[in-house]
Amino acid sequence: MQTEDEFLEVLYKRLPIPPAELVIPPGDDCAGLRIGRGRLLLVAIDQIVGGRHYLLEGPGAAKPEEVGRKLLARNLSDIAAMGGRPLYCLVASALSPRHDDVWLRRFFEGIITLAREFGVLMIGGDLAVTPEDDAASLVIIGEAPEKKVVRRSGARPGDILFSTGRFGRAVATGHHLTFKPRCREGEWLASKGYARAMIDVSDGLLLDARRLCRSSGTGLRLNTDHIPLRSPETSLREALTDGEDYELLFAVAKRKTGRLATAWPFEETPLTVIGEFIASDKPVIRDSEGALLAFEGGEGFDHFTSMEGGGDSGS
Amino acid sequence: MQTEDEFLEVLYKRLPIPPAELVIPPGDDCAGLRIGRGRLLLVAIDQIVGGRHYLLEGPGAAKPEEVGRKLLARNLSDIAAMGGRPLYCLVASALSPRHDDVWLRRFFEGIITLAREFGVLMIGGDLAVTPEDDAASLVIIGEAPEKKVVRRSGARPGDILFSTGRFGRAVATGHHLTFKPRCREGEWLASKGYARAMIDVSDGLLLDARRLCRSSGTGLRLNTDHIPLRSPETSLREALTDGEDYELLFAVAKRKTGRLATAWPFEETPLTVIGEFIASDKPVIRDSEGALLAFEGGEGFDHFTSMEGGGDSGS
Repeated sequence: MQTEDEFLEVLYKRLPIPPAELVIPPGDDCAGLRIGRGRLLLVAIDQIVGGRHYLLEGPGAAKPEEVGRKLLARNLSDIAAMGGRPLYCLVASALSPRHDDVWLRRFFEGIITLAREFGVLMIGGDLAVTPEDDAASLVIIGEAPEKKVVRRSGARPGDILFSTGRFGRAVATGHHLTFKPRCREGEWLASKGYARAMIDVSDGLLLDARRLCRSSGTGLRLNTDHIPLRSPETSLREALTDGEDYELLFAVAKRKTGRLATAWPFEETPLTVIGEFIASDKPVIRDSEGALLAFEGGEGFDHFTSMEGGGDSGS
Repeated sequence: MQTEDEFLEVLYKRLPIPPAELVIPPGDDCAGLRIGRGRLLLVAIDQIVGGRHYLLEGPGAAKPEEVGRKLLARNLSDIAAMGGRPLYCLVASALSPRHDDVWLRRFFEGIITLAREFGVLMIGGDLAVTPEDDAASLVIIGEAPEKKVVRRSGARPGDILFSTGRFGRAVATGHHLTFKPRCREGEWLASKGYARAMIDVSDGLLLDARRLCRSSGTGLRLNTDHIPLRSPETSLREALTDGEDYELLFAVAKRKTGRLATAWPFEETPLTVIGEFIASDKPVIRDSEGALLAFEGGEGFDHFTSMEGGGDSGS
């Protein structure tokens, strides 16, 4: 069975030639539409499914506010990865009849509270009822100056790979429900011209780093010893493949790395050098010793391929 | 329990004051954002749920192409209701593991085929797997000149209510899977300045006509004898309350009605005068005799209120 990336790629290839205003076609964290005077509108869709992205019952069950918050936060992370600023969202909820008005109100409360924090306005909604399951989707609309927007494809061999934050055990530690989307960091990196390729880590560091390489036409040497682990219990493998970190990975030209380290204004957000892009016509990722990084059973969170196991993968 | 309209209205009231570029705030068929030079971007979200909007199994079960087609068609109808032109869509599918790649491909085939017919490009997608149910949502992005866009709020007492097409038994006859969204009709009505208030009928003629009245601050006298029935078996009550017709209801200034009837270029689309807006501070709807139109058990399809029964309602 195909991965989600492969499935969508085949689909997009069958579409008619996009108009000139579609400056960033599908396949990046957001699509980008030119809307006059060098301004790009950024759009992305993402969703959460009960029992996949959060626990419905028992210990560790998510509160409705946390479910709503996570739905928006995932999407904000996609805007962050383009260096954009989020503006609007639209929400469709398809919820089980076991939820009452109070649950629904608290779910939207979670969305609205985070939205306010990031200056996002909800401008559309649709409510539906399912037989049994819970699913909700959200479309985020943001903006970025066309000259500043950061795509996945701009990394060059010799560029340095930086990350924000820490990796691994995002579900076990509850991070996946409480993480703060890196919008401010992303916008700053774009506006100052530091990041020339960027992606957010939703599906696992290794898988998302490979996407960055694939779009840029490079390989990558990862300093596996330097990858910031979420906690002392976190293994390297967990950091590389767990996913749901919602941190930024980005490429910086080598000559700018010193300046970036000095100028970084986000004291609470760890900034780490974790690798270097290398020349390669395949998106290979090697460790510090030059050995190929690969894990049996997959390298990330593209659970779309394991239909039985279920799961999802971000757009 | 609140209706969907009521729930969302309370929610939107709690949002911060929208910026000036949000020319059409939520509560209409689409939200409208000014994007320079008198151009509005129109955005709406809508969804379909298996077992609610289509049958999953047995006789009358929908083909995957039909499911995808319906998802887009519902959204196109929202753009039509603003007199807009559809441009882009993004799709999130949350599907049961019983569907294979072939099903998914056929589902997207249904979307893409209709999209091509209406010049719409798919620019984003997200695929997820649920434990059991099927849900999918779609965001439509369109455009309209700010001076031509048609809202729900423009009807005045004395205006004539027109409809396109026929009403009732949309599910029983399969119309809900095969209807042609009235985009061309809607855009023509807007560009020629005929429609000064418009809505599409997704939740029942009576319920959607009442929304038009509510937004416009008027009442309505419906010529119940003139409402075009889908078939000889269709009852008036079915025509008024079944929903899923996806026809346009619109207000036309009395002095323009003759010209409209003559100029109407869509030979295959019935155009019918079905009522007249009346002065009223409540959105009351009366029949030709002046009697209040109301049905026990509700007047439309706002199934959000009947959680046990399930269902949905469009945005």
